[in-house]
Parts: sequence; structure tokens; C-alpha cells
Amino acid sequence: VSTAVTLAIDCMGGDRGPSVTVPAALDFLGKNAGAKVILVGARDAIDAQLGAHARVRDDRIEVRHSAEVVSMDDSPVTAYRRKKDSSMRVAIECVKEGLASACVSAGNTGALMVIATRVLETLPGIERPAIASVLPTITGSTYMLDLGANVDCKPEHLVQFAVMGATLVAATEHKDRPTVGLLNIGEEAIKGNEVVKQAAELLRASGLNFIGNVEGDGIYKGAADVVVCDGFVGNVALKTSEGLVEMLATFLRQEFTRNLLTKLAALVARPVISAFRRRVDYRRYNGATLLGLRGIVVKSHGSADRFSFQRALERAAEEARLGLVARLAERLTASEAAA
Amino acid sequence: VSTAVTLAIDCMGGDRGPSVTVPAALDFLGKNAGAKVILVGARDAIDAQLGAHARVRDDRIEVRHSAEVVSMDDSPVTAYRRKKDSSMRVAIECVKEGLASACVSAGNTGALMVIATRVLETLPGIERPAIASVLPTITGSTYMLDLGANVDCKPEHLVQFAVMGATLVAATEHKDRPTVGLLNIGEEAIKGNEVVKQAAELLRASGLNFIGNVEGDGIYKGAADVVVCDGFVGNVALKTSEGLVEMLATFLRQEFTRNLLTKLAALVARPVISAFRRRVDYRRYNGATLLGLRGIVVKSHGSADRFSFQRALERAAEEARLGLVARLAERLTASEAAA
Repeated sequence: VSTAVTLAIDCMGGDRGPSVTVPAALDFLGKNAGAKVILVGARDAIDAQLGAHARVRDDRIEVRHSAEVVSMDDSPVTAYRRKKDSSMRVAIECVKEGLASACVSAGNTGALMVIATRVLETLPGIERPAIASVLPTITGSTYMLDLGANVDCKPEHLVQFAVMGATLVAATEHKDRPTVGLLNIGEEAIKGNEVVKQAAELLRASGLNFIGNVEGDGIYKGAADVVVCDGFVGNVALKTSEGLVEMLATFLRQEFTRNLLTKLAALVARPVISAFRRRVDYRRYNGATLLGLRGIVVKSHGSADRFSFQRALERAAEEARLGLVARLAERLTASEAAA
Repeated sequence: VSTAVTLAIDCMGGDRGPSVTVPAALDFLGKNAGAKVILVGARDAIDAQLGAHARVRDDRIEVRHSAEVVSMDDSPVTAYRRKKDSSMRVAIECVKEGLASACVSAGNTGALMVIATRVLETLPGIERPAIASVLPTITGSTYMLDLGANVDCKPEHLVQFAVMGATLVAATEHKDRPTVGLLNIGEEAIKGNEVVKQAAELLRASGLNFIGNVEGDGIYKGAADVVVCDGFVGNVALKTSEGLVEMLATFLRQEFTRNLLTKLAALVARPVISAFRRRVDYRRYNGATLLGLRGIVVKSHGSADRFSFQRALERAAEEARLGLVARLAERLTASEAAA
């Protein structure tokens, strides 16, 4: 599993564009001897960053100029129709044309979804890709999907997410039969809405290692290797978690800077707090996969820093090396055949 | 605002029954000079707890025997139809009969919902009560509803939640025109599902202080005084938060107990960590209100301890003192008239 990969990188995406994406790409090359990158975007801006990082020009780096940038305000359809030379689109086309094994963007998620879906097309049986990401748990990690691509899901969609999520975890975590849980609420009276109830029945018959319902607190308890939900619920759960972590970090900082005594305590506790922070650092988990496309597309958080964006690049490279798309196609066909 | 209140307490509910509920009731009486309690449940068990806490018999305490207990496994309808002498039901009937100004239970939520709805009935225009609770934010606190009573909501339901939530916050937080946000997801392509989109339009026309969409991370950022969502999403967001806090607490403990050095750091940092823990202690926020009934019903977390259960009692007492039900009835009528 050490096939050379080439990543097409949308260098203009994200809050800080090339000043983050280019150094991250160089870090990635430093750690992945065989890998190559195609840096897509405004050539001047990219060259300036390459120059600033004083790196002897590496023949593993190709710069591909594109004149346009998808902004955060562009509607996805506008971005697709009007900006044919956007860095996002050109990066995706590199995958389509077989020039790259995967692409990564920190840009507008909606636009990325639409452009990737139209340019790369979906795998058989998939209408829209789902967004999957890995989250830390008490016992290790879990993969959750969908995180915002599909609202108003049908039960069949949730089953597709389960099949794709299980395939992703089987590949990346080397688990034979990953457990799959369905995100639900626990009250007896009102156990879930109709869609979730029907999805549970389908999942029980699916041949997947379905363990039943998982409540919100089960996500971080590591109740299942894969947690499946519709994109609305998944997005709320993820963003709520981010907000909560931010609040707790703020409170912790406030308590440690309250007075001289607490500042002294902070000094003593710093290594412990740092170790704690590293463990829950959302940046480490950066890189959400758009599952269900005929190509690998990884979405980085828009606010990603250099370290964080590099993590997204690593994720894309790993999925390419593992041949994720072929695995997904195979599993989806098998599950269609079984249905 | 110091009317004497009488709380009817379901002493048998919750994981630990009378050993938690009775001492908490005594604590509550200790802090609320004018208040009375009706302790409902198995008289022997309650008397034993009263005796154990060596309190001179107070004429503010009435014990009301009931022979049955709603278990966590009882279906709500079974609990309602078959267990007419359950402690939960008798406590609710105390409110119905005007013997108590509010009731509190830590029992089966689904059963509490159904029994309270059938015994007390709902306010005009309300089909089912919503569950509202207060959460900490970076800037103070926010009220969120629904937290699990209503899945598959219509847009009109979300508007009702908004009206009731705003009324609750206006009363308990003494805010004139509390801000109301609609929980939604932020991606441009896919901004919310149909129900949420329609609810937003209704809310814009409602005369409420509607500030628009709030994403998951906005909850803990204090983006709005009231955050409205359907019960499925709200329950997932709440439980996910609980699971995340538990995971973070576990990680923090693990890091502080890793070796002799970190244990030393823990010793030094203890007061700071304790202050931090107090601030985010979920127990302080215990007590969810069933909004929309012709009476005050507060649900305590099943795992509540003495301190935590007492917080739920305080919440019920405060809502009774503030005349919450009359306020709700008035606001709902006004909003019906405006519609």
C-alpha cells in the first residue's frame, strides 16, 4: 500500500488561501516521499508562497493556473455554471482526467458538493454524495455521516450512508466488520421519526454489522464505528460539538487566568493541559470525505491552519492509496444486488 | 413575587428514588421558607428517608401514599391506562386539583409527557407540550426547545415553541424581548430542510424578536436567548453535548493521573479545575420544563443526585411564582389572534 499519489489542491479555498494551503502542501510532500501535488490557483500567489518557503523547486510540484475563485457567497449553481476556471473546479477536473488521485479544497462546501457531483458524477445507486468525518471517542474514534450534504433523507439514503461509512472504516481503520449505529433519540414514547424507524428495519436486513440505535451521547462514547444520520441532524451535532468545545476552552482559559494563583497553577498544569488539548484538537480530525463520487474529494474546514490542512491532505492521500472509490463501487453493487 | 408555592414531588422517579428525592425536597424547604411539598410515593420508603434525615416533622411536608410506580420500561400509554395510582400520576393530579402549584418527576419522560398531557390538558392551540431547558453559553445562558417531545414537527409547531420559549425567558430571565433563533445548518446549497425554511418565514412575520438562523455552534456562543428546533434535532444536540462533556472530563482526568508529575500538577490545579467544573456542571442546569400544559411540570434528569434534583425543584417553584402558565396562555392567545 505505497502507490504514489498525486493530490490536486485547490490553493485558493479557505479563509487564508495560498498562505495556508501551499505551506501545508510542502509539509505533505516532506512527509510523503513518493507523492506529488498539483497546486491549483492564481499562479502569482502560489509562486510567491513557494518562494517564501525557500524551497528548491521540486519536480513533484506542478502549478496549474486558474483565473477564478469560488467565494463563500457564491451559490453552488452559480459557482458551477459561471466559474468554469475556478481553482476548485480545475482541481476536481484533475481527478476526472486522471491527472490526480484525489483533490482537496477548503472552499465553499455547497459549491464543492455541486461541482464535484456534476464533474465526477456519483457511483451507481447514489444520488448525492454524503459528507463523512472522523470524530474522537472515549475509546478511539468513530465515523459519522451525513454531516450536511443531504437534508430530508429517505430511509434508503440512510442505508446507503451506512454501506459507504462501513466501507470507509473497513478500509481506513482495517476493521473487518465495523459496527454501524443509527443516530436516534431514546424516549420510549417517541423513539425516532418515521424515516429513522424505517431505516432501522432496512439496516437490520442489510447484512451490515448493525447494532441498532445510538443516542447523541453514544457518539463520543464510541458506541459504534459508524454513526449514520441525515445531514441536518449530523451537521447540528457536529457544529454543536465545535461550539461546546470552544466554550469549554474559553472557560478553562478564564479560570486559569483569574488571578496570580491560578496563573501559577496554569504554569504547573501547562504540560497536562497541552496534552489534553492535543487529544481533543479538532484540527487533527480535519478532512471530511465526500463519499459516493467517482473520485476522491476531501473537504477541509475553511478556517484550517497549516497543520490542519495538511491533515486533510493526508486523509485524501490515504483514501487514494487504499483505492477507496473501487471499494465503494464494489460494496454498493453488492448491497444493491442483495436488496 | 413571593407567593407561597406547593410542589408535588414524584418521590419514586429517577434512578435512585426516595433516597435522592426526599433529601432534595428537605433541602428545598430549607431554602424556601414559605414553600410546602407533597411527597408522593410509597409511604414507608418516604417515611424512612424523612426519619433518616432526622428532621423534626415539618407541617410544610405532606406525604401522599401511592401504590404504583411507573418504570423506565413502561410504555407511556400503559403507564397512563394501567397505573392510575402511580406516584407520577398522583403528583400530576395534585396540580390538576389545585393542591400543588407545580410538580416534578425524574421518571420516564415519555410517560410523564403522556400522563401530564392527558391529565392536565394543553393550552389553547397546543397539541403536545414541548420540552425546554436552559443551557450555559459563553456569554450567559440560552433556552432550547424542543428537546425530544415532538419529532416530525410542522413549521407551525416551531413557531409555537418560539412563542412559548420567549415567554419562558421573558419571565425567568426578566428580558423584555428575548431574541429567538431557529436552529439550522449553514451550507448555502442546502440551507435547511423545508420545514425549517417555512418556519423561518412564519417567524419573520410573528412579531417575535426573531434573529434568523442559528447554527449548532451558535447555541453555546449565546447567539440567541431562545433556540428553537424539532425534538429530534434538539434531543440529539443535547445528548451529544452530554456525551462530549463526559469524554472531555474523562480525558482531563486521564491526563492529570498519567504519572507522578501530572498528579502533582493536578494537586496545584485542583481549585481551578473545580471552578471550571462547577461552571459547566450539567447538574446546575437540571430541570426541563414541559411547556404548553395547563399546569407546571418539570422533568428532572433520571440520574439526578440530591443537589441536581433540588435544582429542578427550584425551577418548578420559580415558574409557579412567576405565574408561567397564565403568561403562556396570554401570549399564545395573542399570537393566535395575530395569525
